[in-house]
Amino acid sequence: MEKRVYLDWNATTPLRREVREAMAAAWNAGGNPSSVHAEGRRARGLVEDARAVVAAAIGGESRNVIFTSGGTEANALALAPGTLSRSGQTIERLVVSAVEHASVLAGGRFMPDRTAILPVHRSGLVNLEALRAMLANEPPALVSVMLANNETGAIQPIAAIADLVHVAGGLLHVDAVQAFGKIDFTIKGLSADLVSVSAHKIGGPTGIGALILAADLTSPAALIRGGGQERGRRAGTENVPAIAGFGAAVTAAIAARDEDMPRVEALRNRLEQGLRQTQGNAGRGVIFSAEVARLPNTTLFGVPGLKAETAIIGFDLEGIAVSSGSACSSGKIQPSHVLEAMGYGPDIAKSAIRFSLGWETTEEDVDRALKAWRKLAGALLRGHETVLERF
Amino acid sequence: MEKRVYLDWNATTPLRREVREAMAAAWNAGGNPSSVHAEGRRARGLVEDARAVVAAAIGGESRNVIFTSGGTEANALALAPGTLSRSGQTIERLVVSAVEHASVLAGGRFMPDRTAILPVHRSGLVNLEALRAMLANEPPALVSVMLANNETGAIQPIAAIADLVHVAGGLLHVDAVQAFGKIDFTIKGLSADLVSVSAHKIGGPTGIGALILAADLTSPAALIRGGGQERGRRAGTENVPAIAGFGAAVTAAIAARDEDMPRVEALRNRLEQGLRQTQGNAGRGVIFSAEVARLPNTTLFGVPGLKAETAIIGFDLEGIAVSSGSACSSGKIQPSHVLEAMGYGPDIAKSAIRFSLGWETTEEDVDRALKAWRKLAGALLRGHETVLERF
Repeated sequence: MEKRVYLDWNATTPLRREVREAMAAAWNAGGNPSSVHAEGRRARGLVEDARAVVAAAIGGESRNVIFTSGGTEANALALAPGTLSRSGQTIERLVVSAVEHASVLAGGRFMPDRTAILPVHRSGLVNLEALRAMLANEPPALVSVMLANNETGAIQPIAAIADLVHVAGGLLHVDAVQAFGKIDFTIKGLSADLVSVSAHKIGGPTGIGALILAADLTSPAALIRGGGQERGRRAGTENVPAIAGFGAAVTAAIAARDEDMPRVEALRNRLEQGLRQTQGNAGRGVIFSAEVARLPNTTLFGVPGLKAETAIIGFDLEGIAVSSGSACSSGKIQPSHVLEAMGYGPDIAKSAIRFSLGWETTEEDVDRALKAWRKLAGALLRGHETVLERF
Repeated sequence: MEKRVYLDWNATTPLRREVREAMAAAWNAGGNPSSVHAEGRRARGLVEDARAVVAAAIGGESRNVIFTSGGTEANALALAPGTLSRSGQTIERLVVSAVEHASVLAGGRFMPDRTAILPVHRSGLVNLEALRAMLANEPPALVSVMLANNETGAIQPIAAIADLVHVAGGLLHVDAVQAFGKIDFTIKGLSADLVSVSAHKIGGPTGIGALILAADLTSPAALIRGGGQERGRRAGTENVPAIAGFGAAVTAAIAARDEDMPRVEALRNRLEQGLRQTQGNAGRGVIFSAEVARLPNTTLFGVPGLKAETAIIGFDLEGIAVSSGSACSSGKIQPSHVLEAMGYGPDIAKSAIRFSLGWETTEEDVDRALKAWRKLAGALLRGHETVLERF
């Protein structure tokens, strides 16, 4: 059987070897970090070592890292009304960009009537003028904008956003789940107040993530309360093997990043060149957010009239795993909310296929995906006038 | 080096072999259950298989199982104001027993002024007359009482509690984290409306648990929102390996229960007999809740004047891991809230050591623990008048 080609790394990446080893060691060591005996103290050590690794990876401090069950919970924890602004005001208003992940769009613990949606340009980048207007002459808001979009890979101008938010006395939460481990950033460099990250997008285990707070920020009210774990900011027995695996994934991802990511980007560019050439000059296909800075591994591609669900099954039968926008909503046959927010109509928004590459992706993988696309495109686009039908 | 004796199984049990295998297989399979392609569908299958196993284990239905990041989150999800009673009334009041786990005592999303504490008898069992009075002539309440206590092992009369709660039009949540896999029960047999369980107390992985709803119950409002996972009741990428491991742990624990638990109970009784004999007739030591039905594996033992923290370190140095009451609070030097609620003073409440046995515990382990206790007791109780000083 031909090797399966995996171009859906933003959904779940394979577990890194270093992660497997760290998790196995933690499982074998056992222990509950809240216990006083030797097993407990050893487990506590694993948790604190991983915390230091995660903190260092984004230039934060260990004590400001709150481990959660993943990126979604980190976002839910971050979006808490009542957090104190830098000037000590209680924040009761939330602004989220229209292209955020579903876990941010849900608004956390803010009531819907205290949540406003920040529009984006056709490029996918947030509309800074609209943000300025939303913040003017209003009580300070918590603003949540992702560092990189999980569907298009578009990288938001976070520092500029932070300036506007802070001038207006608000706080900035950055969902960095998709960007973490792929591009270099620090919480200070972003001027962010809260940052969410997750392990399973960088070759770590599922079920573990973290919210990292800026040095002098009051913690949001705990979402899951009870035991005193995580300094009372997140109750529940620490998931020691997952935390140890998270630390190992961060170390491995960052060590390999400078070598992996330029190679991945070159492969991604080869894929995009191939997609563009397949269409010929008359092609109506679009690579979304291509005009702005993007993650090096992501391509969101659409052609009016293509049905993404059918295309994914076609690729699947050719041995290639791709996704339709975000995996969290791909079970539902509906256009991507990201593309709708960018101003694309449902016809093209329903056509979008996401290719995301990982550190194990090869040139052969990309070429097989392109070959499959050339084979599939004609059938998939039948009835639609396009040069693709010539293939 | 002499084999380490592990008598702290209520905190973290070793991972069962079957669980390791199921988790490794899930890691190797990869995939995100929300994805459409083959990997996604396989991951979805693993999740649904485990869901059916968990449901069957307590006589529930698969569609009423909501996977969470653990018992603490399951409790936090259960304790939601606004859930509809059987007669369609909105429940806005919470009653929790005084011996609940910290994650229930925290009250979930109920405001403190809408939460009342149900007292318990000196045996540790809830005061049914007090419950009746608290429910009379009041709007219907959500009542949360654990099946078995994590410190003493005492088993609550859940069916009798359910009768009182349901006559008053309320709902009953049962935290069965500690009892699950150790004693046989069903959600119907308990007449419970919501039941919390966890994997890591039965040899499954940390970081995974479930809330199971009675057949016709409206789901509590989601705590972690965003993606449509768990039928919109718990957002976040499913932790597939942990869920698969949970299923494997349940299967293994239940298959072995009828053989394991009588053996464990006999060992626990041998331990208690030894503790009682060590004290002699004049001993002032107490085995808490010994007069009521308890889990077969748990002994909570105290002697006035003993300092539990010191005793645990003493046992630790003798190669034996034990805990002081619940691991979730054992990092803090404070008396057990469970023993305080049972009417014990701080002197004895601060002395309580928990021995909890697992399926791998041997007679030799118990005898080594008793030998260590005989060695330690004199020094630990110096200055306190007790026959233990004679050793």
